[in-house]
Amino acid sequence: MIKVVILGSGNVGTHLFKAFNKKNSEIKIKQWYSRNLKDLAPYSDLVKITDQLDKLEFADVYILAVNDDSIYELSTQLLFSNRLVCHTSGSKSKNELNLKNRSAVFYPLQTFSKESEIDFSKIPICLESTNPNDMITLKKISKSLGCTYYEIDSNQREKLHLAAVFVNNFTNHMYTIAKSITDKSKIDFNILKPLITETVNKINTLDPKEAQTGPAIRGDKKTTDKHLMDLDNEKHRQLYKLITNLINDLDHEKL
Amino acid sequence: MIKVVILGSGNVGTHLFKAFNKKNSEIKIKQWYSRNLKDLAPYSDLVKITDQLDKLEFADVYILAVNDDSIYELSTQLLFSNRLVCHTSGSKSKNELNLKNRSAVFYPLQTFSKESEIDFSKIPICLESTNPNDMITLKKISKSLGCTYYEIDSNQREKLHLAAVFVNNFTNHMYTIAKSITDKSKIDFNILKPLITETVNKINTLDPKEAQTGPAIRGDKKTTDKHLMDLDNEKHRQLYKLITNLINDLDHEKL
Repeated sequence: MIKVVILGSGNVGTHLFKAFNKKNSEIKIKQWYSRNLKDLAPYSDLVKITDQLDKLEFADVYILAVNDDSIYELSTQLLFSNRLVCHTSGSKSKNELNLKNRSAVFYPLQTFSKESEIDFSKIPICLESTNPNDMITLKKISKSLGCTYYEIDSNQREKLHLAAVFVNNFTNHMYTIAKSITDKSKIDFNILKPLITETVNKINTLDPKEAQTGPAIRGDKKTTDKHLMDLDNEKHRQLYKLITNLINDLDHEKL
Repeated sequence: MIKVVILGSGNVGTHLFKAFNKKNSEIKIKQWYSRNLKDLAPYSDLVKITDQLDKLEFADVYILAVNDDSIYELSTQLLFSNRLVCHTSGSKSKNELNLKNRSAVFYPLQTFSKESEIDFSKIPICLESTNPNDMITLKKISKSLGCTYYEIDSNQREKLHLAAVFVNNFTNHMYTIAKSITDKSKIDFNILKPLITETVNKINTLDPKEAQTGPAIRGDKKTTDKHLMDLDNEKHRQLYKLITNLINDLDHEKL
């Protein structure tokens, strides 16, 4: 049985709590801490809650599921030392944590929103630790959640987070732009959903570079020029030109 | 029974042939035409094939599944008149077709590659016709394929195709860039796949604008500055800045 204290009541903290709080789990949630105790109130029948750092109980792992900018401060405010303390951030180094404790990283690579349910077992966990024994503990926790895990150092994790911004944040913005286009022409955005799904399915069997289709890779300038005329937002036109250009470069790389 | 002639042996033509060529189909494929008869040779036991336009038989519908730039020429070369002739292009107007026949559009909104199997019934079909009776025929064909169909005029279809470029071509390029980042850092690109899938799942319940997460929408300049330093391709840096900027604008629109 691994004893865990969760610190933070945001999306990641809440989803972690729900994932740990299963029957027959090998994880015992000792306590859940938040500065805002009222966020934890709905869970007070299920777990000990606190907003006092000096009331934190002993645990095998302290998971700081807080904003990137709060990691350093919160880790410094902890009143104990030489315990295993990890953060859950994609973009912060392990060394962001105050070194009085054994620092580590437990980064679930997924986009969380409080309202949507998530199958935690499908989330890859990126692990990093200073101490090899701590790595064993973090792997046990990942396994008990049914997750695939990867040992990823801070430098790699920063790059992975950058790549995640492209596949998630930026892709989502492509959907936003597409919806603004369909809305303006009174077209149901849902027409595009099978295409969106198939775009993802394709990269399960093809390298994305090989999966590229469309006017840009074909060098179909008539169509790309017409599209540019159809876009009434100057930044969208810039974006269209830039990505079309990048896809074109790809074609030349191949030759 | 609706009699169909398919013209073109590319991805769309081939997938259409396979979708029509089912037992108990209400569609009878009279003939399959291609300039390159050898492309059709593997199917010669299943359907009459030809590379001679003067050998085309009578049918209720002629489907021109050819490159955008060949639509006008091929439709002009047809030796008959006043029959229902449609193209399958997202970006070309119905009037691209020679007007000696009854022009129409049968546009399956999907990304096709020859190698991958496709469940045609999941593809939305955008229909347009000059003649109301022809619309009835095109709807019957869509229904017999199990497809959802939409009446979309040429102007709307052009916009829809532009939106499709964003959700498919450009999104796929985001995956390409992400893979170049993970490859360079010797990280397994597969780690990102659950995130890619969840990005799509989210927009089934949320407007993409509402689903936006990440450093750009949070205005987390520390992280976006670090990411810009991590990108070693100047065009990728431009792209990162531009999309970050666009996501930021979104935040201001909300206020």
